[in-house]
Amino acid sequence: MSTPWSHRFAQRTQTIKSSAIRELLKLTQRPEVISFAGGLPAAELFPVDHFRDACQRVLADHATAALQYGPTEGYLPLREMIVENLRRYGIMASPENVLITSGSQQALDLIAKLLINPGDRILVEAPSYLGALQAFNVFGAEYVTVPIDNDGIRTDLLEGALRSGPKFMYILPNFQNPGGVTMSVERRRELVFLSNKYGVPIIEDDPYGQLRFEGEHLPPLVVLDRDNMRGDSTYQLGNVIYLSTFSKTLAPGLRLGWIVAPPEVIAKLVQLKQGADLHTSTFNQIVAYEVARGGFLEEHIKTIRAVYGERRRVMIKALEEFFPPEVSWTHPQGGLFLWVTLPEGMDCQKLFRAAVEQNVAFVPGDCFYTQEGEGLRNFRLNFSASSPERIREGIRRLSIAVRQQMEELHIVPALV
Amino acid sequence: MSTPWSHRFAQRTQTIKSSAIRELLKLTQRPEVISFAGGLPAAELFPVDHFRDACQRVLADHATAALQYGPTEGYLPLREMIVENLRRYGIMASPENVLITSGSQQALDLIAKLLINPGDRILVEAPSYLGALQAFNVFGAEYVTVPIDNDGIRTDLLEGALRSGPKFMYILPNFQNPGGVTMSVERRRELVFLSNKYGVPIIEDDPYGQLRFEGEHLPPLVVLDRDNMRGDSTYQLGNVIYLSTFSKTLAPGLRLGWIVAPPEVIAKLVQLKQGADLHTSTFNQIVAYEVARGGFLEEHIKTIRAVYGERRRVMIKALEEFFPPEVSWTHPQGGLFLWVTLPEGMDCQKLFRAAVEQNVAFVPGDCFYTQEGEGLRNFRLNFSASSPERIREGIRRLSIAVRQQMEELHIVPALV
Repeated sequence: MSTPWSHRFAQRTQTIKSSAIRELLKLTQRPEVISFAGGLPAAELFPVDHFRDACQRVLADHATAALQYGPTEGYLPLREMIVENLRRYGIMASPENVLITSGSQQALDLIAKLLINPGDRILVEAPSYLGALQAFNVFGAEYVTVPIDNDGIRTDLLEGALRSGPKFMYILPNFQNPGGVTMSVERRRELVFLSNKYGVPIIEDDPYGQLRFEGEHLPPLVVLDRDNMRGDSTYQLGNVIYLSTFSKTLAPGLRLGWIVAPPEVIAKLVQLKQGADLHTSTFNQIVAYEVARGGFLEEHIKTIRAVYGERRRVMIKALEEFFPPEVSWTHPQGGLFLWVTLPEGMDCQKLFRAAVEQNVAFVPGDCFYTQEGEGLRNFRLNFSASSPERIREGIRRLSIAVRQQMEELHIVPALV
Repeated sequence: MSTPWSHRFAQRTQTIKSSAIRELLKLTQRPEVISFAGGLPAAELFPVDHFRDACQRVLADHATAALQYGPTEGYLPLREMIVENLRRYGIMASPENVLITSGSQQALDLIAKLLINPGDRILVEAPSYLGALQAFNVFGAEYVTVPIDNDGIRTDLLEGALRSGPKFMYILPNFQNPGGVTMSVERRRELVFLSNKYGVPIIEDDPYGQLRFEGEHLPPLVVLDRDNMRGDSTYQLGNVIYLSTFSKTLAPGLRLGWIVAPPEVIAKLVQLKQGADLHTSTFNQIVAYEVARGGFLEEHIKTIRAVYGERRRVMIKALEEFFPPEVSWTHPQGGLFLWVTLPEGMDCQKLFRAAVEQNVAFVPGDCFYTQEGEGLRNFRLNFSASSPERIREGIRRLSIAVRQQMEELHIVPALV
């Protein structure tokens, strides 16, 4: 059916293809499918009773503020609470450095709007978060990529990429999506050093940083960068814009994220946000504040860490048990995902279709790359959203599809 | 304080000036100021008890759906309810025609993203809604303007403007913001006829249409347009994209609006929304559905209409009593605003400063125009957010500032 609209779509929309993940998820919504595809937090951990109490309090004590229009910057007590929480991780900021966004996806959209002219090159990890690439594509981004390994982005390959003059770097240092890997301290220091040397600022996306179930917390890039700026005031923020979210610690259905940036950047982002949605739901901001405050959020995060740590353990154990030794995977110390690498010659898209026939799903690796033909031997597994039993059963089913494709390709399983 | 960011801002952000309204509102937040500046609905009418019950029900029966990620298109029962409500106004659509947005400001942002290439001309009413101009400016819009009078946009001046090839028309037919005027049926038919003749589609923004407290409901442009397309199926939507919101009927703090458009347009907007914020808060969508359903929304709107009708009556009575006869104003049959015209030579910006000294505020008229120097003899008054007593007192204060400026300019009040 033709309409008067299609020939009027702006040039920028020609680069938008229907998201692969979106189409895939439709295939995997049948209840018999065990899906490791989505990035969903464990719904059974949502603090429903706390939400119920918080809604009552907010509507009893703050109904007008919660239901009326509010300031674009966000609800001040929530911004103050975020500032306080950031301090524990060494990030010294004040509420003027914090903008509340409608999920951290909106943070990516606003940053793309603020910084990307059509044709600008953005330096991203390969692979990287699909939603960021989608947000950047709308504004005409082109990409320079640097591969990751088990210690995060390959800083030894960074200088060449930086010389090509990217507008900014987009980096996920903790439990990367999709790689599941964490950037080492040495590489963090090197990255920040090179960022300053080449004058290329960093967007540090940290949705999972608090969900570490193993090992020691590592300093965020925004802290290492501030340390570089000796002699400046405590609240000086420089070369790094830091993003995070309540989606993985409270509930994604609230759509609450935040940006930490220098005041001058926040001022511009506030103007863009005003044109984008006026402000984020005041109701949700006040409810989230009421749920989180008084130490509940920290306690709740401990529970999430314990559950996700166990699920990751069960997934890795099942992979070791059921998968042939030619297949390898990352060992995330936190977050929601691990990343699988298949033997040479295998094709994750074909494997996806075979997996769905076995009633199990993942996201094919090529979705996370900016260049065609990359990531075909990889896929991403989510371990946060399934029970240990379903994780084990799902990995068993998946191993059948993997072994079938290996047989078809005459890849003979090695003797263990 | 300089940062590494400022010289990296994209070209599109150079057109963004800090919103005048935003700066003004800061001046007027002192409690002693009676503000007719904002576009706030009456907070005392928020159905707080219904919200409290709805939150309980949602968290008892739908907690997982409400707190988890949800579909980008929106919560299906809410989209179905919107479709049903639209039918009463003659708009025949199906849920596939409806996209839930984070307030109707996001609808404007997504439409601008979808349709505006830098330099595209957009046809807008003069004056028009400031938030729409902000959303369009970010994507490099230029403007063709057509003035409004008491019967809405001057369709007799439309053909010349349409010949200049605008990308689309942005029209507020009901209780226009800021004019307060409503487009006559004859002009609606003429507008739709010319839209088809010149192949220039229409964005019909209707946030206030349900808030009519006087006169008869008039057919929306989207209905008149469909009537033009004889022989097509019931659900055919053509040349008009229709926008509305729950901000003025339930609560703006929820940030819930919607777009009605042909499926092909919805499909593209869904992709853009995915990159912009993944989806609108599932919690708020389900709560709004629970509050609105079973006929409550219709009953509640009757209350709002009665209260706003009374406030508009009180404001006009006070204007008649206190203002000199050289000043005129519109007589809105619904909505939130009326529009004042001052005598030749007067300056609404100077008047604004004098008014704030009298502890009363409005929005100066030039804020609503795309060209410098227009609207200087006008200002917008909001009557929804103040009690009758404060309306009367505010208009009395404002009349002092008006008479002072008239005296300074030697504009002698006429004998009545």
